[in-house]
Amino acid sequence: MPDPVAPNLVAAVSEARQWQRLMEMGAIGGFSDADGNEGVNRACLTDLDRQARRLLISWAEAIGLTASTDILGNLFLRHEGTDPTLPPVVTGSHMDSQPQGGRFDGIWGVIAAFEAVQALREAGIATRRPVEVVAWTNEEGGRYAPGCMGSMAYAGYAPPTTWDAVTDKDGIRFGDALAEHLALEADIARRPLGTVEGTAPFAYVEAHIEQGPRLEAEGFDIGVVTGIQGSRWFLVEINGKSDHAGTTPLGLRRDAVQDMLRAITALNALMHDPSDVLRFTVAHIEVEPNTSNSVAAVARFTIDFRHPDNAVLQARGNAIEGVIQAALKTCTAKVTERFHAIPTDFAPLVPDAVEGAARAQGLRALRLPSGAFHDAQFIHPLCPTGMIFVPCRAGVSHHPAEYAEPGALAAGARVLAQVLADLANR
Amino acid sequence: MPDPVAPNLVAAVSEARQWQRLMEMGAIGGFSDADGNEGVNRACLTDLDRQARRLLISWAEAIGLTASTDILGNLFLRHEGTDPTLPPVVTGSHMDSQPQGGRFDGIWGVIAAFEAVQALREAGIATRRPVEVVAWTNEEGGRYAPGCMGSMAYAGYAPPTTWDAVTDKDGIRFGDALAEHLALEADIARRPLGTVEGTAPFAYVEAHIEQGPRLEAEGFDIGVVTGIQGSRWFLVEINGKSDHAGTTPLGLRRDAVQDMLRAITALNALMHDPSDVLRFTVAHIEVEPNTSNSVAAVARFTIDFRHPDNAVLQARGNAIEGVIQAALKTCTAKVTERFHAIPTDFAPLVPDAVEGAARAQGLRALRLPSGAFHDAQFIHPLCPTGMIFVPCRAGVSHHPAEYAEPGALAAGARVLAQVLADLANR
Repeated sequence: MPDPVAPNLVAAVSEARQWQRLMEMGAIGGFSDADGNEGVNRACLTDLDRQARRLLISWAEAIGLTASTDILGNLFLRHEGTDPTLPPVVTGSHMDSQPQGGRFDGIWGVIAAFEAVQALREAGIATRRPVEVVAWTNEEGGRYAPGCMGSMAYAGYAPPTTWDAVTDKDGIRFGDALAEHLALEADIARRPLGTVEGTAPFAYVEAHIEQGPRLEAEGFDIGVVTGIQGSRWFLVEINGKSDHAGTTPLGLRRDAVQDMLRAITALNALMHDPSDVLRFTVAHIEVEPNTSNSVAAVARFTIDFRHPDNAVLQARGNAIEGVIQAALKTCTAKVTERFHAIPTDFAPLVPDAVEGAARAQGLRALRLPSGAFHDAQFIHPLCPTGMIFVPCRAGVSHHPAEYAEPGALAAGARVLAQVLADLANR
Repeated sequence: MPDPVAPNLVAAVSEARQWQRLMEMGAIGGFSDADGNEGVNRACLTDLDRQARRLLISWAEAIGLTASTDILGNLFLRHEGTDPTLPPVVTGSHMDSQPQGGRFDGIWGVIAAFEAVQALREAGIATRRPVEVVAWTNEEGGRYAPGCMGSMAYAGYAPPTTWDAVTDKDGIRFGDALAEHLALEADIARRPLGTVEGTAPFAYVEAHIEQGPRLEAEGFDIGVVTGIQGSRWFLVEINGKSDHAGTTPLGLRRDAVQDMLRAITALNALMHDPSDVLRFTVAHIEVEPNTSNSVAAVARFTIDFRHPDNAVLQARGNAIEGVIQAALKTCTAKVTERFHAIPTDFAPLVPDAVEGAARAQGLRALRLPSGAFHDAQFIHPLCPTGMIFVPCRAGVSHHPAEYAEPGALAAGARVLAQVLADLANR
């Protein structure tokens, strides 16, 4: 069990300061939608992303933290421990957003980590271990798929050049965008990628809005995340032939849109789940030449498939390609898996620390799994890992209507501060 | 029946010159696809379009024709008649292409018209009536939908400002692109739009590749076009709600992609036609936010529906919106009709002149309807109208593999020259 709650540490967490910083960050790439919601479009490795990172660094330097980045652009802000040689406690999340995203997903985990570290310092609580605030590169996968590139490379899950040839919608390669980014941040100290000489972090803690409805609906303040469901992403390209829409009989066509329709219909049947636990989503479609009177030569679509049970994730995920091939009538298809994260069960260290801190502060805590994937999923094999969830309105995220109460976010930062004080002194 | 064939006129049509001009035009916006086909991407009102128009004007001025344009950008090259007060015979087609189009669709009708007029002049054959070569603006509808804007405005089918607010994929309004275009062609004489004081053309003749397989497959040189099937274009916008793909149960979603799937499946049933005469095509799809892990909030798709029988065109076309609305499960839909051309039967004057000229020249002619729509469909209410088809390889068009033999194109230009000599002397 953690130490009893330290009143001066809890008091040092500022609800107003944290909220003000979130709003400042939300203005970088911020927009209002037609319903008056305040959203954010801040894609990774863009000028807006760099503007947000520079703002964070300016805050960090003002309180004496040291900034460094690695060759994937992961950004670290180090609070030194009384024994700098010990493996650090790492805490943070990501700063990139969905194209039409909200002001809390990801960025709050970075700002909460920063708020917690600032509170530690202002409360005069030294820690044996260093604490590093991290902002991982490209968690969302909105500009470059898949997501979690920064944490995957950090954890050694994939070599750092794995995604160099991935292009965004303007045809810009990830490798080129990253090289430009590193050149523009050349003034920031460079650190090695990942862990050096096998020295993994002591623990990793990530704070995040729930992105689901349970905490709000069931009246809890804090989610003690027990694990993350598995995710598999696929890209499907269907190749047919373009023809004149007015002259070519339907019986002679190889229409990529029509075969895409057959493929998705067959996948809907494969993914049918009366218990509604399985998540199956087709949300990205591209057609070529995409002109209304030329039969489609190419149709591409993505599959986002998730399940908490690895047996289901493997069985149905492995069936996807065969189901698509069998559904086609006139075209050919190429199916590529772009992302594969098996379900994660966190070790007890961090969840227990989170639950203990929440209870010590008189907060109502619920143990629950995460429906969304997070960078924590890839750090999990390196060291004891966990997450802190706070409620978000109606469970909405990846949308400008995403919202969390200032008080709920402050409660999350207070729990995180106590968890850091606990873990960094073990 | 037309006059007997004039040997000097037929001899004045140059197969090599016409082919050379087609290849020169094909280089403007030309590209090679992965299979080595030579295609063209020359969208209307672009610099490439203007470059092609300037090249045509330079050829025209070299042989003494007079260039003028109207406020829709329709370009006319006038060969004067011995009685300049008589209504002219107008002939031509369009110079814009599909995004991944061929080197013959449209542009050959303009170049054949020019070749035929040049042959008339070189053969010393004066005509009582003026002959005007025309290049209509935006026939394809690839950049700005619908197609045939130039001929529609010329014929008074719609006011010239009808399409000002239509945007291309970069968000540029048609009205702005047209204003820029007119400014860049301000040095060319401006003529009134359409017919002045009710003076319609005496006749309109349009030469075009068949865009279908019949002439080639059945061994004919010339298609005597008897009419054009009807076309209706619709834009469908399906509105749902974006949500996180990992956390939102499928039962709580309003997924625009899934409702699009339901709508198209229902339309496939509505449009089922065992005789394979009906043409139904969904070839343009846009999704928002179009990111793989955010449920689609919006899905837009186009419908291109054609039939030669107006009763079928009206009955099934009018059922489209109801069928879509009934198919939706969780979203709402807005259905907009963007284009509506009823089936056309040409009056006998031009088809008879074309058939007579073909027979006089010893060519095998087939009477047939057009599956594609053409500017001729909108000129038809103004004056006797007709078209000359030549075979194209395998019936392929709207594709870089589109091809017509130089000899077949020369035969078409020779028939057109004789038809112009005939009609312009009536």
